[in-house]
Amino acid sequence: MPITGVRNLIAVGSGKGGVGKTTVSVNLAITLARLGNKVGLMDADVYGPNVPLMMGVRATPHAIGERIQPIEKYGVKVMSMGFLNPGDKPLVWRGPMLHSVIQQFLRGVDWGELDYLIIDLPPGTGDVQLTLIQTAPLTGAVVVTTPSDVSLEDARKAIHMFQQVRVPILGLVENMSYLQCPHCNERIDVFSHGGGRKTAEMMNVYFLGELPLDPAVRIGGDSGQPIGLKPAPDFEAIVRQVERRAAEESVKKGPTVQIED
Amino acid sequence: MPITGVRNLIAVGSGKGGVGKTTVSVNLAITLARLGNKVGLMDADVYGPNVPLMMGVRATPHAIGERIQPIEKYGVKVMSMGFLNPGDKPLVWRGPMLHSVIQQFLRGVDWGELDYLIIDLPPGTGDVQLTLIQTAPLTGAVVVTTPSDVSLEDARKAIHMFQQVRVPILGLVENMSYLQCPHCNERIDVFSHGGGRKTAEMMNVYFLGELPLDPAVRIGGDSGQPIGLKPAPDFEAIVRQVERRAAEESVKKGPTVQIED
Repeated sequence: MPITGVRNLIAVGSGKGGVGKTTVSVNLAITLARLGNKVGLMDADVYGPNVPLMMGVRATPHAIGERIQPIEKYGVKVMSMGFLNPGDKPLVWRGPMLHSVIQQFLRGVDWGELDYLIIDLPPGTGDVQLTLIQTAPLTGAVVVTTPSDVSLEDARKAIHMFQQVRVPILGLVENMSYLQCPHCNERIDVFSHGGGRKTAEMMNVYFLGELPLDPAVRIGGDSGQPIGLKPAPDFEAIVRQVERRAAEESVKKGPTVQIED
Repeated sequence: MPITGVRNLIAVGSGKGGVGKTTVSVNLAITLARLGNKVGLMDADVYGPNVPLMMGVRATPHAIGERIQPIEKYGVKVMSMGFLNPGDKPLVWRGPMLHSVIQQFLRGVDWGELDYLIIDLPPGTGDVQLTLIQTAPLTGAVVVTTPSDVSLEDARKAIHMFQQVRVPILGLVENMSYLQCPHCNERIDVFSHGGGRKTAEMMNVYFLGELPLDPAVRIGGDSGQPIGLKPAPDFEAIVRQVERRAAEESVKKGPTVQIED
């Protein structure tokens, strides 16, 4: 069942955690908004919701009638478990609880008219992913990996998962691709390099680009001032590819016809 | 219910993925074995089991009678979902399936007599963590984080989770603490620095030490030749602390008396 008013529903996933999935989600959302789109960002990582910290927003959403109002920051409408469960207390929940929260976030939040709703998935191939895929018509998925073999191993699993359930892969991003030493400007391949492109070619999915392991990206996230707030040509190139691939996949699906009484 | 023959059951966890939890688990197990202990390593990250790749072992365990035989490598008895589901096909399972696999791994594997069984948890505070904590008497947990605020936010959640369910925290490890540029030898604080120690002090848990962001660690993991195979004084110091803390917590618990007919 489509989400009324939402044109493109894009999931950002990874097999492995800590590869920069939330960083990519946040900066993708902010950049899309900066380029003139109406954008929402749904933090579906209910166990480790880092979106509020990275977006620099701590607030309690209120409801109008039965609709939860998302929090707006940097031109993006944001919803996160971190708003409802702030602080350091963990949610120790089993799968069925997750299912109902994800449903609430998709259907019970007043997203309004959106060109893009970006969903920051938790890592892995578990309950949240299944629920989303089974209940919402995803335009496609962006898969994030680092160039390390361990991360690529899990990225291949995530790609297979999306393909098994017929979610189009918009493309693969290689994050933490290399580091430029701030002292001597030499390049350091901390997590190796190039495995993202090779994996994309091997699995016949689109390669969206490389993002360097730049301490400025981490500082932006830790301080609630994501790098996407300022023009960043490398990242904008990736965002343009995501827009183009989403449009391609939307065309393939054709128009959605809803027949009502 | 204790696991027969296993003296210390240590879980390695993190709030966030990709912080080096599996790297710490693998090298902790190998180093404990190198120091003369009988050691098992159970990969409980069923969605993204990276232990086989890091240990450089691909094999299919066989059963003797009803007991699954673990695979031995580098003096460590290893069991992983990666042995049973090799290749890139993901497991798209809901919570209850996980519960039964974890039970099988704990009770159905022929671990024999072990000084330490190290359990590499999946990231977060979900189904696998709950099942383990509720069904096995953990000696304690090692929590891994990077120094970034985002990772520390999730580490605090993991510590709270273990404390809520009365699992002793053996201590906190700060991984990817800094990088020494291989070109100019200057130090680069890629993911910031020092937040692990501060967080440990703030939460009144033991700080086990810092591990640098060393490309050699990643290469060791990607190639199945973990750094723990060779003497590494920094890491050994951390392992000694884990041993000491496990002994402390075992004493607190007192001897286990089993009364049988």
